[in-house]
Amino acid sequence: MSDVGAAIGQTLSPEALEGLLRRIGAERYHNRHPYHRRMTAGELSKGELQAWALNRYCYQAAIPRKDAIIIARSSDPAFRAAWRSRIEEHDGSDGWNGGIARWLHLATSLGLDAEVVKSERLALPATRFAVGAYLSFCAERSFLEAVASSLTELFSPVIIAERVPAMLAKYDYITRDTLVYFERRPEQASRDSDFALAYVLEHADTAERQQAVVDALVHKCDILWAMLDALDHAYGAGEAIPPGAFIPEH
Amino acid sequence: MSDVGAAIGQTLSPEALEGLLRRIGAERYHNRHPYHRRMTAGELSKGELQAWALNRYCYQAAIPRKDAIIIARSSDPAFRAAWRSRIEEHDGSDGWNGGIARWLHLATSLGLDAEVVKSERLALPATRFAVGAYLSFCAERSFLEAVASSLTELFSPVIIAERVPAMLAKYDYITRDTLVYFERRPEQASRDSDFALAYVLEHADTAERQQAVVDALVHKCDILWAMLDALDHAYGAGEAIPPGAFIPEH
Repeated sequence: MSDVGAAIGQTLSPEALEGLLRRIGAERYHNRHPYHRRMTAGELSKGELQAWALNRYCYQAAIPRKDAIIIARSSDPAFRAAWRSRIEEHDGSDGWNGGIARWLHLATSLGLDAEVVKSERLALPATRFAVGAYLSFCAERSFLEAVASSLTELFSPVIIAERVPAMLAKYDYITRDTLVYFERRPEQASRDSDFALAYVLEHADTAERQQAVVDALVHKCDILWAMLDALDHAYGAGEAIPPGAFIPEH
Repeated sequence: MSDVGAAIGQTLSPEALEGLLRRIGAERYHNRHPYHRRMTAGELSKGELQAWALNRYCYQAAIPRKDAIIIARSSDPAFRAAWRSRIEEHDGSDGWNGGIARWLHLATSLGLDAEVVKSERLALPATRFAVGAYLSFCAERSFLEAVASSLTELFSPVIIAERVPAMLAKYDYITRDTLVYFERRPEQASRDSDFALAYVLEHADTAERQQAVVDALVHKCDILWAMLDALDHAYGAGEAIPPGAFIPEH
């Protein structure tokens, strides 16, 4: 077991805390998951990619709700206004011209039916539970922990930089248009995670709060990892699709 | 007692339901409260106006949180995007260039200190409890009831049309600049309440749901009324200011 999750004994400097958070990402972010590794190696079947897009849609669709939960908990108008841009990006100006629509485009470009994807009814139960755990965490834990749980965005430019060129190179049915969702994400994620990181480094000013922040990021990494675990179990080598879940055409 | 609150025996047509909701406003909206009547009659002392602005700030400041709660509960991106404009108007683009800032301007124009108002520490406990009841209602009741509780906005153009000309005419220290908050509100409230009313009329399609919607609007009217009751008791004729609350200079 890594020492990254070890208890923080004394209050860290902001620089040391940031270093620890980045080490958590390096060890636990889902770009290290076998499902992602197989994706970038060109080893996923089309059905496995479809299952990924369909399940991940549930997560994408819940993100604005998660961010609204965080906004609802803030009594600082300036914080709320800054955080609001996250919702604007995912929902767009009318609900269907932002990031959720672009993820739906990814799913339909892989051959899935838009209404089926939007209904979420063929998603894995484990996906829904993981997404629900994220919403509950942001609603029920301290405000600082809710903000800290967003810090996986620190690492999303890495996974996107691995994913996009590999998918374009390895799957002949995937084009730049398929992956248009990812074009704006690195810039958005970078700006959003800069803001969240600055907030966390400023407010996690005791060993106890720093531990809470570290645990929140670990928890969020667990959520993303569990989603790929569920995909791997259902659609990977030993294909074991639970009742009612998406069944790829073979 | 009015029959407006009476139980709905059978499912009403959308037109009949709208009529009932508007009758509730006509009977229960806080433009009928003695404190408002005294305000428009020019009978409030400056201290009473200050107390009103200071306490009402707590309500204004909580509105974006209430709206974020409603957004967090919606799984419809189009609904969320439409409802989001409410937050944009109150928080503005940076937190302090929207409706909350304009209400703060009203309060400081009446001679109050901005930091004291923003801290909310001199507000009446009853104000805080009423605001908290509104947030809890929107978080805990059905989504339809949460939306319906916003329908007091149907009546806000009425109270603003009563308030603004009367305040300009009756209080020599109040100018158009003092009341700039109200300039954009009738248009915003009208657009927002049209959207909410259409949602409610579409979704309150059983007698049970219609009753829930009626009760939600009554509850919200109660919240606004209770805030003026508390002001009246604390700062009105029998001045009885609770410990720790704002004390006007005499």
